[in-house]
Amino acid sequence: MKQLTVDVAVIGGGTAGLSAYQAAKQHTDRVVMIAGGVCGTTDNPVDYTPSKLLMAAAQAAYHARHSESFGVIVDGSVRIDGKQVMAQIKSERDRVVGLAQQQLEAIPATDKIYGAAQFIGENSLQIGAHTQVHAARIVIATGSAWPSSKTWQDLDDRLLTNDDLFNWDDLPTSVAVLGTDAIGLEIAQALHRLDVTVHVFGVSGQIGPLTDPDVMRYAQQTFADEFPLIADAQIESMTRQGDQVIIRYMDDHLQSQTIRVDYVIAATDAPPAIEQLGLERLNLALDDRNVPIANPRTMQTSKPHIFIAGDASSQQPLLHDAEDQGRIAGDNAGRWPNLQTKEHSSPISVVLTEPQIAMIGISFQQASERLSPCDCLIQGEVNFEQPGRHQLRLNNKGRLNVYAEQGTGLFVGAEMVGPAAEHVAHLLAWAHHQKMTILQMLDMPCYHPDIEEAVRAVLRDVAAKLDISSDCALSDGDLSAGPLNNGPLNNGPLSNAPLSTGDLG
Amino acid sequence: MKQLTVDVAVIGGGTAGLSAYQAAKQHTDRVVMIAGGVCGTTDNPVDYTPSKLLMAAAQAAYHARHSESFGVIVDGSVRIDGKQVMAQIKSERDRVVGLAQQQLEAIPATDKIYGAAQFIGENSLQIGAHTQVHAARIVIATGSAWPSSKTWQDLDDRLLTNDDLFNWDDLPTSVAVLGTDAIGLEIAQALHRLDVTVHVFGVSGQIGPLTDPDVMRYAQQTFADEFPLIADAQIESMTRQGDQVIIRYMDDHLQSQTIRVDYVIAATDAPPAIEQLGLERLNLALDDRNVPIANPRTMQTSKPHIFIAGDASSQQPLLHDAEDQGRIAGDNAGRWPNLQTKEHSSPISVVLTEPQIAMIGISFQQASERLSPCDCLIQGEVNFEQPGRHQLRLNNKGRLNVYAEQGTGLFVGAEMVGPAAEHVAHLLAWAHHQKMTILQMLDMPCYHPDIEEAVRAVLRDVAAKLDISSDCALSDGDLSAGPLNNGPLNNGPLSNAPLSTGDLG
Repeated sequence: MKQLTVDVAVIGGGTAGLSAYQAAKQHTDRVVMIAGGVCGTTDNPVDYTPSKLLMAAAQAAYHARHSESFGVIVDGSVRIDGKQVMAQIKSERDRVVGLAQQQLEAIPATDKIYGAAQFIGENSLQIGAHTQVHAARIVIATGSAWPSSKTWQDLDDRLLTNDDLFNWDDLPTSVAVLGTDAIGLEIAQALHRLDVTVHVFGVSGQIGPLTDPDVMRYAQQTFADEFPLIADAQIESMTRQGDQVIIRYMDDHLQSQTIRVDYVIAATDAPPAIEQLGLERLNLALDDRNVPIANPRTMQTSKPHIFIAGDASSQQPLLHDAEDQGRIAGDNAGRWPNLQTKEHSSPISVVLTEPQIAMIGISFQQASERLSPCDCLIQGEVNFEQPGRHQLRLNNKGRLNVYAEQGTGLFVGAEMVGPAAEHVAHLLAWAHHQKMTILQMLDMPCYHPDIEEAVRAVLRDVAAKLDISSDCALSDGDLSAGPLNNGPLNNGPLSNAPLSTGDLG
Repeated sequence: MKQLTVDVAVIGGGTAGLSAYQAAKQHTDRVVMIAGGVCGTTDNPVDYTPSKLLMAAAQAAYHARHSESFGVIVDGSVRIDGKQVMAQIKSERDRVVGLAQQQLEAIPATDKIYGAAQFIGENSLQIGAHTQVHAARIVIATGSAWPSSKTWQDLDDRLLTNDDLFNWDDLPTSVAVLGTDAIGLEIAQALHRLDVTVHVFGVSGQIGPLTDPDVMRYAQQTFADEFPLIADAQIESMTRQGDQVIIRYMDDHLQSQTIRVDYVIAATDAPPAIEQLGLERLNLALDDRNVPIANPRTMQTSKPHIFIAGDASSQQPLLHDAEDQGRIAGDNAGRWPNLQTKEHSSPISVVLTEPQIAMIGISFQQASERLSPCDCLIQGEVNFEQPGRHQLRLNNKGRLNVYAEQGTGLFVGAEMVGPAAEHVAHLLAWAHHQKMTILQMLDMPCYHPDIEEAVRAVLRDVAAKLDISSDCALSDGDLSAGPLNNGPLNNGPLSNAPLSTGDLG
């Protein structure tokens, strides 16, 4: 058994692990990274590529089929070559995995150990059967993963998670998508536009991360107009029959319906990959998902020398960038015990459907809870269907609601479904992060005419309701930071009903 | 002859005129708007719709023809229905003109006079043959227009300007585009993608508003790869022959070439529509284009009671939004003599080609002139072709260069050709307007993975070159405001060689 003593051990070779390693190395040379496999990253390929890559193909199909209103005529038909779609997606996945692997290979061999890590003491890790690492500080950056064996109602290999889609060699004929989180909506719209028959089942009417009933209603209607979407579904049973699954559910009119699909996709984020770490030996403070609680400003757990970052942690809605989290954790593990705190970044959440969904700052629900009691919530609205705004007819659906505090005019948050929402989200998040007021935002430059003109329109709408003589000023800190929302992002539909993540294990 | 005495007269019923009228009315009821025709706006339909609308159709065609790499196969051919393309563009134009007209109609009849206005004294205007207006303050907001009769080298109706494209009932077979300003590039790429044979002739290698040789070279190569583009053209002759024009020019290898086209498009902004105003009677200070010089913070001309705004003025590169200019001019005409100054907005310039071009802040050329002598210019670069960045294969061309001041790290400007440049431009312009440093910008939130990730990459590249111990600090005011650039935006290719605007009159 090889014995190794270091200042910092980083468990995980994905995005968060890599940046933790690099940050720790700024403080000490004695850093080791423990990577789970040859590549080790669960973050890059799994977390974003399947639904995002399917969406790229789906948009190509959609736009090829909707060019006629511009005078661009397709003489013939637009056909989806499922094998080619999947081949392209796999090749893109391989490219991304290859890039991650290159980064891992750039780390000196003496700083790397391959194998599964397990805590055997507060400062000791067992790596496979071959090595023991004794580390003054430890960063957990193991990413997220579904347990390898999934059985649920005997659906067996007909039940898929997001990452399982990479295993398709061709597109299926029909699927049921369980969940209307970002991943669920993206997969559902993408497959639908690629000619797969799609049925989407949500929970309690929730659409993506939205909380504003007005924006949510708009989004739900838009998606339900395109593909079968039951936002508040009651699934009665799912039964495997041959290579298909029979689903019985209650429709909106409380009529029992039966459909038959090739696959059921449990469309939600994978849980943190921490089950095999032996954390139970450490007496760490855990949250209700059994994930170590960490200070989002330092990534420090309840054990001062243990840090956690990336998808392995519960910080996702707060600090969405695994790289940033890894950097904070690695930096603090390196400089320990003199920790540096990182200011909260204004939260951004984006769903890359068409139209896109975006949320920034605090949610409508949070803004209402905090500002409505004193009648201090003011709100602006803009509808992207208003004439005179956009020249692209395919791109004119959407709604943007902006929330501010009466009196101070402080911009506190926004929810949006609409064109270029990912970009509008960044513009608004930078303003939110700087605690700008609506009037300051109206002084910012705007190129005319553009999507950003709609942003000005909504800001003007808020400004018209602003009464600067009002003395609401609850805004100290409370309104400009904190998790995006406590609901749907932390608890996907699978974690309450009709499924629960536990059932998948 | 009707006589009317008012506090403020606004000449022009377009975007700038409307907002000037509304702003002046906040201060006094005695405001009159003089609109040139039934609608009067030259701004909305003329300035942006033809090239932008053509571009929407062109992108639809391009994407329908380039979907195969995603596995989306068009069985058959993609055909451009020129008549339908033009019908759709005209209907969109009519819609926008209709909206402008509605706004005009909402103004009370007592505040409106229709007819051509002419100064007959410093405070007096003659409207047509029917009315004389005596006004304490006057706002000129007449927009821009090409003189109605154009003759140049006997090309007659074969020579078109941007707005003439609205007269097409069908797309032509071939055109020559003179000018590589925003309008020239947009028209050229749009028509090329709509199956029109296009030849583009530029001046001195200039591409759009760019000044960074590195970004310019990238943009030129990208466009020249797609359609015939001679960025530094020497046209020897243009001769009409029947319904066509024969153009003789020198190619890049100094070989004489001859082409035959249906139309020659003089693709540059129309000059300010001020020729018929009788300004010569006023002894106003004029710039080298004979346009009244105005203070960009107040819109006040050299005559304290006369203001000018919108396309009629020379403020275009500085304050791109006619609405904003109109508001400043109208507000100051209303509150005169107690003027309010408006802070410079950080300049944004966007070309809506694919990839898009964008510039914000001061140009590379200006940054070099001011910062290079003391070795205080630091620069970051990002190439959008770098692997691992974008999932959309059709969208992976581009380059973004960011300029900052050594020592302070102040962000001073950026030039870009690439995907979503219009949105990146707004994000950067908001930061520039707030005089942020590169390190402050790196603290801003970023959703991963996205175009905005490339922004972070380029900011990190600058930050790596930043030496905070350096004591360059030229940045007081000088670097953060001022016109975007003094060159190409003010002087389109038509105004030096091979054509000059005067020749078109």
